Amino acid sequence: MRLRLLGSGDAAGMPLYGCGCEACDAASDSPVLRRTACSAQLEIGGRTYLLDAGQMSLTQRFPSGSLDGILLTHFHVDHVQGLFHLRWGVGADIPVYCPEDEEGCADLYKHPGMLCFHPQQAFVPFMLDKLQVTPLPLNHSKPTFGYLMMWQRERIAYLTDTKGLPSKTAELLGSDKLDLMVLDCSHLPGCDRPGHNNLDDALVWHNIIAPRQTVLTHIGHDLDIWLKANPRVLPDGVLAGHDEQLVYPIS
Amino acid sequence: MRLRLLGSGDAAGMPLYGCGCEACDAASDSPVLRRTACSAQLEIGGRTYLLDAGQMSLTQRFPSGSLDGILLTHFHVDHVQGLFHLRWGVGADIPVYCPEDEEGCADLYKHPGMLCFHPQQAFVPFMLDKLQVTPLPLNHSKPTFGYLMMWQRERIAYLTDTKGLPSKTAELLGSDKLDLMVLDCSHLPGCDRPGHNNLDDALVWHNIIAPRQTVLTHIGHDLDIWLKANPRVLPDGVLAGHDEQLVYPIS
Repeated sequence: MRLRLLGSGDAAGMPLYGCGCEACDAASDSPVLRRTACSAQLEIGGRTYLLDAGQMSLTQRFPSGSLDGILLTHFHVDHVQGLFHLRWGVGADIPVYCPEDEEGCADLYKHPGMLCFHPQQAFVPFMLDKLQVTPLPLNHSKPTFGYLMMWQRERIAYLTDTKGLPSKTAELLGSDKLDLMVLDCSHLPGCDRPGHNNLDDALVWHNIIAPRQTVLTHIGHDLDIWLKANPRVLPDGVLAGHDEQLVYPIS
Repeated sequence: MRLRLLGSGDAAGMPLYGCGCEACDAASDSPVLRRTACSAQLEIGGRTYLLDAGQMSLTQRFPSGSLDGILLTHFHVDHVQGLFHLRWGVGADIPVYCPEDEEGCADLYKHPGMLCFHPQQAFVPFMLDKLQVTPLPLNHSKPTFGYLMMWQRERIAYLTDTKGLPSKTAELLGSDKLDLMVLDCSHLPGCDRPGHNNLDDALVWHNIIAPRQTVLTHIGHDLDIWLKANPRVLPDGVLAGHDEQLVYPIS
């Protein structure tokens, strides 16, 4: 399995539109400092899957036929907006695995085009070729799944957007050693908002789940700046992710 | 007044994802042949307005403070998708003039961020500085306005998405000479579908309204190819628009 973060930002991203701070100026000038819509690319056995589809350039980056499926965490715009254009293509359908959500987003259900939505049941594993995927409920303002992905002896989990973890989800994650946990960490320590972890939350859950490595994602503007100012604050085994980072295998 | 088309395509655009036809291959290789989300930029008296906001790169193209307002024709995704990211910025609110539409699109009303929606009444003119704008109902599957824009003796109309024109809209447009009519023309001649003009419709309405110039926009894949194969089919006074084209003043 290879997992690459395509985007590591929250819905606003870095640079934040209209913000003149030093970090935003630097991100405007340097693509490697940008944070775009939180999503990742999973490659396994010659197949390519996306975790969320908020990137704006999916049609350019993934030519027709190169995507074997999409795992959607939920239907908020910053996680699905790349589908609005992609759907109108021609060719083989693209399967989209997702939580059950009556609303979906905008007119995606009404006009799915080449997308084929497959709602999944919580905790019921399904197979993508030889990869076993288990949808795990998260704590968010819309029905949201994290995904536990298992192949041979490797176990990785992708967990965003969430505030903390529901107990059954935590129990399943903790039942065997995780190689990698990619985890929502949007806000500054002490900044409590519903729907997303702050750094305190993320570190608590890193300690409870105890994966070999935790990579923080969905990082907001203020946390991004704070992490740059406090580069040694993250304990061993915890990294702040960045766009285009290959996070698995662990280097 | 200066009016530039930013995008001249339908929701699928050119190239069409997954299509291997000659025209799509050419559009993949050459940005000038692409058709992106139908929208335009209006400049008048040092102010900049957008007609629709479906372009994906609004935050890069229009730095904070450079947009004085947005005229939305309607809330279909390909006309508003650029707002999903733009809204999370910081700075002065951006006024968005639009039809009344209870649904809006996705969570734009719930989380407007820096956007300030101002629903307008049909046929009731409003002022943007010295520009008089009159919202004109169109025939589409969602509440949709075209806009008649008048400044001194100049009159231009932007009319998409629509199938034909409602009689009161046509009456108002025909009541005085139009300098420019930008008009929905999505489909091949003879291809009748609700919500969008085909070329027959567009030429009929060009003759009825009789502007100095008609520019076709929202051009779909099949019509684009057909127009390239039939370059002399359009009568004097009718042009097929393209992305980035300055359509007013008429050259």
